[in-house]
Amino acid sequence: MKTEGRNAVLELLKTGKNIDKILLEKSDKATPQGSLGLVFSQARAKGVRIQFVDRRVLDKESVTGKHQGVIAFTTDYEYYDLEDIIAEKRSEKGGFVVLCDGIEDVHNLGSILRVAECAGCDGVVISKTGCAPVTEAAIRISAGAAEHIKVARVPSLNQAVEKLQKEGYWVYALEAGGEDIYTQDFTGNVALIVGGEDSGVKRLTKERCDKVLSIPLQGRVNSLNASVALGIAAYEVVRGRR
Amino acid sequence: MKTEGRNAVLELLKTGKNIDKILLEKSDKATPQGSLGLVFSQARAKGVRIQFVDRRVLDKESVTGKHQGVIAFTTDYEYYDLEDIIAEKRSEKGGFVVLCDGIEDVHNLGSILRVAECAGCDGVVISKTGCAPVTEAAIRISAGAAEHIKVARVPSLNQAVEKLQKEGYWVYALEAGGEDIYTQDFTGNVALIVGGEDSGVKRLTKERCDKVLSIPLQGRVNSLNASVALGIAAYEVVRGRR
Repeated sequence: MKTEGRNAVLELLKTGKNIDKILLEKSDKATPQGSLGLVFSQARAKGVRIQFVDRRVLDKESVTGKHQGVIAFTTDYEYYDLEDIIAEKRSEKGGFVVLCDGIEDVHNLGSILRVAECAGCDGVVISKTGCAPVTEAAIRISAGAAEHIKVARVPSLNQAVEKLQKEGYWVYALEAGGEDIYTQDFTGNVALIVGGEDSGVKRLTKERCDKVLSIPLQGRVNSLNASVALGIAAYEVVRGRR
Repeated sequence: MKTEGRNAVLELLKTGKNIDKILLEKSDKATPQGSLGLVFSQARAKGVRIQFVDRRVLDKESVTGKHQGVIAFTTDYEYYDLEDIIAEKRSEKGGFVVLCDGIEDVHNLGSILRVAECAGCDGVVISKTGCAPVTEAAIRISAGAAEHIKVARVPSLNQAVEKLQKEGYWVYALEAGGEDIYTQDFTGNVALIVGGEDSGVKRLTKERCDKVLSIPLQGRVNSLNASVALGIAAYEVVRGRR
């Protein structure tokens, strides 16, 4: 959904609704001025993705014809809380949560939702900053999974890790250089963290985890795609629990 | 690379080089006439992908400005023969080959090459018809894997299955409704067939296989993405061989 105009977008920013991105008109100034500047600063404070574009891009995207240099995009997707995911417990063998660290690409996010749903996870946790939100494109790519799996969008992934640990989850980061994934015991509550294509799981997050786990690579390419790596790891949990 | 003009494309069709696709100018006739008709019939006989487009699309794609209604796209990628892949045997535990049945999307193909390389497969077999060729986009998406894994492009996938079976391979189709993948013995030579997003592994191919194997789905979405399914299955082979 699109919200156009300075006041409308400022009001939208107050509601706490999940905004996918805001398009702002480019200007000669280093940062936008006046009420556009207010939109810019409030959006940035909330960690909303901002794109500066030419006026003609806004003209093209505008439905009302009165965008005043700003259009915000929201998705109707309703996020859950981390507590909802923790309460889900689809398997009697224990909780099973996936956390995304820096998955910026909506295609990757959609694929991750699909894998997580197929592997019977209770939900997927994404962070408000550095992670793509559940956009229309992500929902489409998830092949219906976005309707069946709970997604929580949290301000801090590290706080989510701590919360899960307090609730008795073993939190594993999927990264190179860790322990062999095929020698683990996945009984009990399990959380898997998958990192973005370029940066992987961040250092601070890794340090908070209980363990770093690695999928043994047999070839010369040094990493698997995020959703494929999650698929292999999540199904190793499924197999280990049988 | 682009080859433009009727005679040049007719010559190209004689060389046996791998052509990704041919753009032909749309006309009012049901099928193209004259020398364009010759290009059309010879390309179709060779199973080359043909797209009919407006003249202005050809004008835009043309480098020479003399396309005469036809432009062929080739990739410099050098395919191997199935025999090269059979001879590869990277693992002392046995051969390991992946076959693609109707993977039409170059993104999926690129992802499959990446997974296959990471799992230590000897090579990937694609069919000349119904399967995307190794294009520049597929190479890019493979994240370098296309340089390290052998790809064979065969006229008939079913003949490739028969050839592998004669060479002592157990050929498994990955599809719903088969045996549980977690109860299999993957010692010896193994070939996995992965099907396209919509159609899956075709009935005739499935009938030729030694077994149909399924990844147990725990959720409500009824299938995994092709490269993710291959990742899970290929790593089950890796695990089983350790």
